[in-house]
Amino acid sequence: MIRTVGIVCKPIQEVVCGVVPPLLAWLSDRRIHTLIDKETQACINSGIEGIPRESLAEKVDLLLVLGGDGTLLSAARALRGHSIPILGVNLGGLGFLTSVTLGELYPVLEQAVAGNYRTSDRMMLQATVTHDGHASGPHLALNDAVVNKSAMARMLDFDVYVDKSHVGRYRADGLIVATPTGSTAYSLAAGGPIAHPDLDVLVVTPICPHMLTNRPLVVPGSSEVGVDFSAADEPVYLTLDGQTGTQIGLNHRVAITKSENKVKLVRPTDKTYFEILRSKLRWGER
Amino acid sequence: MIRTVGIVCKPIQEVVCGVVPPLLAWLSDRRIHTLIDKETQACINSGIEGIPRESLAEKVDLLLVLGGDGTLLSAARALRGHSIPILGVNLGGLGFLTSVTLGELYPVLEQAVAGNYRTSDRMMLQATVTHDGHASGPHLALNDAVVNKSAMARMLDFDVYVDKSHVGRYRADGLIVATPTGSTAYSLAAGGPIAHPDLDVLVVTPICPHMLTNRPLVVPGSSEVGVDFSAADEPVYLTLDGQTGTQIGLNHRVAITKSENKVKLVRPTDKTYFEILRSKLRWGER
Amino acid sequence: MIRTVGIVCKPIQEVVCGVVPPLLAWLSDRRIHTLIDKETQACINSGIEGIPRESLAEKVDLLLVLGGDGTLLSAARALRGHSIPILGVNLGGLGFLTSVTLGELYPVLEQAVAGNYRTSDRMMLQATVTHDGHASGPHLALNDAVVNKSAMARMLDFDVYVDKSHVGRYRADGLIVATPTGSTAYSLAAGGPIAHPDLDVLVVTPICPHMLTNRPLVVPGSSEVGVDFSAADEPVYLTLDGQTGTQIGLNHRVAITKSENKVKLVRPTDKTYFEILRSKLRWGER
Amino acid sequence: MIRTVGIVCKPIQEVVCGVVPPLLAWLSDRRIHTLIDKETQACINSGIEGIPRESLAEKVDLLLVLGGDGTLLSAARALRGHSIPILGVNLGGLGFLTSVTLGELYPVLEQAVAGNYRTSDRMMLQATVTHDGHASGPHLALNDAVVNKSAMARMLDFDVYVDKSHVGRYRADGLIVATPTGSTAYSLAAGGPIAHPDLDVLVVTPICPHMLTNRPLVVPGSSEVGVDFSAADEPVYLTLDGQTGTQIGLNHRVAITKSENKVKLVRPTDKTYFEILRSKLRWGER
Repeated sequence: MIRTVGIVCKPIQEVVCGVVPPLLAWLSDRRIHTLIDKETQACINSGIEGIPRESLAEKVDLLLVLGGDGTLLSAARALRGHSIPILGVNLGGLGFLTSVTLGELYPVLEQAVAGNYRTSDRMMLQATVTHDGHASGPHLALNDAVVNKSAMARMLDFDVYVDKSHVGRYRADGLIVATPTGSTAYSLAAGGPIAHPDLDVLVVTPICPHMLTNRPLVVPGSSEVGVDFSAADEPVYLTLDGQTGTQIGLNHRVAITKSENKVKLVRPTDKTYFEILRSKLRWGER
Repeated sequence: MIRTVGIVCKPIQEVVCGVVPPLLAWLSDRRIHTLIDKETQACINSGIEGIPRESLAEKVDLLLVLGGDGTLLSAARALRGHSIPILGVNLGGLGFLTSVTLGELYPVLEQAVAGNYRTSDRMMLQATVTHDGHASGPHLALNDAVVNKSAMARMLDFDVYVDKSHVGRYRADGLIVATPTGSTAYSLAAGGPIAHPDLDVLVVTPICPHMLTNRPLVVPGSSEVGVDFSAADEPVYLTLDGQTGTQIGLNHRVAITKSENKVKLVRPTDKTYFEILRSKLRWGER
Repeated sequence: MIRTVGIVCKPIQEVVCGVVPPLLAWLSDRRIHTLIDKETQACINSGIEGIPRESLAEKVDLLLVLGGDGTLLSAARALRGHSIPILGVNLGGLGFLTSVTLGELYPVLEQAVAGNYRTSDRMMLQATVTHDGHASGPHLALNDAVVNKSAMARMLDFDVYVDKSHVGRYRADGLIVATPTGSTAYSLAAGGPIAHPDLDVLVVTPICPHMLTNRPLVVPGSSEVGVDFSAADEPVYLTLDGQTGTQIGLNHRVAITKSENKVKLVRPTDKTYFEILRSKLRWGER
Repeated sequence: MIRTVGIVCKPIQEVVCGVVPPLLAWLSDRRIHTLIDKETQACINSGIEGIPRESLAEKVDLLLVLGGDGTLLSAARALRGHSIPILGVNLGGLGFLTSVTLGELYPVLEQAVAGNYRTSDRMMLQATVTHDGHASGPHLALNDAVVNKSAMARMLDFDVYVDKSHVGRYRADGLIVATPTGSTAYSLAAGGPIAHPDLDVLVVTPICPHMLTNRPLVVPGSSEVGVDFSAADEPVYLTLDGQTGTQIGLNHRVAITKSENKVKLVRPTDKTYFEILRSKLRWGER
């Protein structure tokens, strides 16, 4: 039974302001306690106090994300290991992660608060940066962890390892390590395959590799993908879900593995994975 | 303990004729019984009688394949479910499946006949063609099952299903369903990813799809990939490992799943999967 | 001034039967003589006698093609060197070659018969097959000349030459030589670039090449692309525009050059090349 | 007749120091005046004074570049419109631009100083950045002009124009506009075709486009490729030949056209373009 719902919004968007007040009323009518994040508070300008996203996790039974896939990615990382079901509502069109449209919000929510929902458990990644025995991280990602060159450098040289095994030295703009969930995001644009979300795999896709034979790899989900920048002579950047990032020094090493945490996406019962895929990628049209 | 070794050769190749006689003597010296297939018999022109490949499986503890990856693919299908370790020796250079070179033959074989070997279990596919309730097959493949158009037809329209779920209608030259083993063969040429051989996945790669968004898919190994040709108005062909095939009629349906049979490849202890990959794909060079 | 209009239709299509009779009346009202091909005659079931497409060329000032890009490709080859402007009307949606929609037919035609039209001259290809000093052809194509393997063969080995220079030996399913016009058709599906129709170039795109470095080539329009099948041990097929083809023997050679003939496409004044491209490839959507 | 030779070196490389002194002696023996750039002076530590690369152009009849393709790209831009033949000697292996190896230096040079050489004229690009009526540039490039996002931004939105015609809005990491010479460099890694160096075309290749239909374009060499960043909300970078670059502001526009300047590459008489391509891309191997 859902007693408390948290709401996370894409900040400062007019459509959100129109959606949230009636939603709060709807939940209140059903005697469901509601907590909102600070971005939502700013948006609706009501007396309810916003809570940092990181704190919502401990207090709610269901997290409602209003926005697009980007908002959901950010919210998922903020949950950091709390296994809260997330219901993503896409305010624009249709997302891979936010496949409930605004028109479906109330029927789906009606079911969800009654406990009638299924979830799709999605793998998360964690990236750890090590240097001289010191480690920073882990940094979480739901879609992908990306290492890449600076804007004006041409090529980056780096060595890739899967577990203890040397895959090869790459010359490329960078490397994407994606979850199956993230395989339809940046990795796809870089030439990677679409991996079914039920798979326990990592997709390792080089960005514009100099060697045309450096094709995308699919490796077991239990693998550690290591990237060693000893051969690089330019700064390198690590980005998580294309949203947060950090510059990493020369001679640093990045290790990317599956996280123990999973994201529980509430899925609308009437759409298959391939229906969403077809719709998003416009299959059926040229 | 290996008591009986079977030998399968790439037929009528001079190098084979030079290799087999000393190999027979070497095995005889170690009191290992040896059976050869008919192609090998034709090659060495000795008194030993050849046995059909299909019959070797029941009689040997180890199958020695001399040739290239193509010879091994053919031998593997001939074993049809008999779980015999296969040692592939590449007479030319280096194969993905036949990663033992001629120079390594005796040291590796010495170890193998003493039982000192590890195997890599490789998934096989089976394809079944159904029409009006009648089924033909299953047809086995180690690399891939391919459906494609006839030589002079431009495009084939077909519907792809994963289990009960409609993936989409494709316009393409055809479709490749590959095992991880086969992901470095035809599927790679058609734009597919490289899947690690330990994975339990199928790689589904369209051949020259009209829609550029029809990208390669990686789906669970437990999936049934169904291809329905109701929309096709041209003959369609099914090919296994690029070696044997059959024309299939209009309105037929092909179902491709993982086979219960596996191929047990003896692997040389000192080469990792990625070393073989690097060497075959010439990574490290442009 | 347009005195005689020829009409070529996609055969046996209900929509054509609805379109042609009022079109004939419209042209008759303007005292424009009209000739129809045999396919159109079959369709409309009137007393007008149809003429073979090949004969229309000598008798008309404008050729009206009702159908899709496929119908126009076929009509263009039938003109064989007669420089008649072609107005392509797409009965379905929007084509690359037939960018006038049914709704635009009469306004565009009104302008055209008054001589108010611009044409886009499009390069054609000619392919000649030679063997032992004997030549067959030339075979004309507006989009592409394709050589490819038979349906169940895996790979074809062939040597490609540009003028006298050896480009390389390819292992592939085949090779596409496309005009800029054809660069958005099969060549695009095989990984080729989009070449602007004003360019005097040939696009040479291998189909599923074994070597990942065998990337599409763009060569001068004045080049002769030679394909030598001495290394092939399987039958090879030559196809023109994906519509007509022929099996070619072992040891044959195919030479593909620009034809002296050009196709003159009447273009609607208000759509740029990139607008049509955007619409057809659904740019602006994901 | 060649009276004065300029020498440009890849700076501070041991092999250069070994090559330059005997080369200076060889040229002196033939009474050919020699000028060296400052990088070469630093390297050989002799009494000869180095001259800035930019000043060499006005004083020499032939420019000898010792290094690799990168050194030649830099030297070519430094010539800025002076039509001096450039002889590129590759100190490592074989370059696309520096296809003379060290072993061939003296025979080729012997011919060249006697005037026995052919040149291959290569198109250069110029990029101009405009904002509020102010322009900076033009920036020259021999291979490519690249606009791209900053290291940690995910996507860049920009509009591309060819002449006055809107090609489309792109979401991508960036855009490469390459000469035929540059088509085998970064553009190839991003999925672009190989354009023959005799062609008068620009290759326009998006980097990791979000829309899979945004394929590489080949447009006439006379085109102006305009990139408008009004839709971007992140800093954008312009890089020339992957070597020099600049950050460009929001709302800036970049216009890229063919330069009036050409680079005259001295070509060794015995290698065809395709021989160099085959060797560099390792065709003939997998």
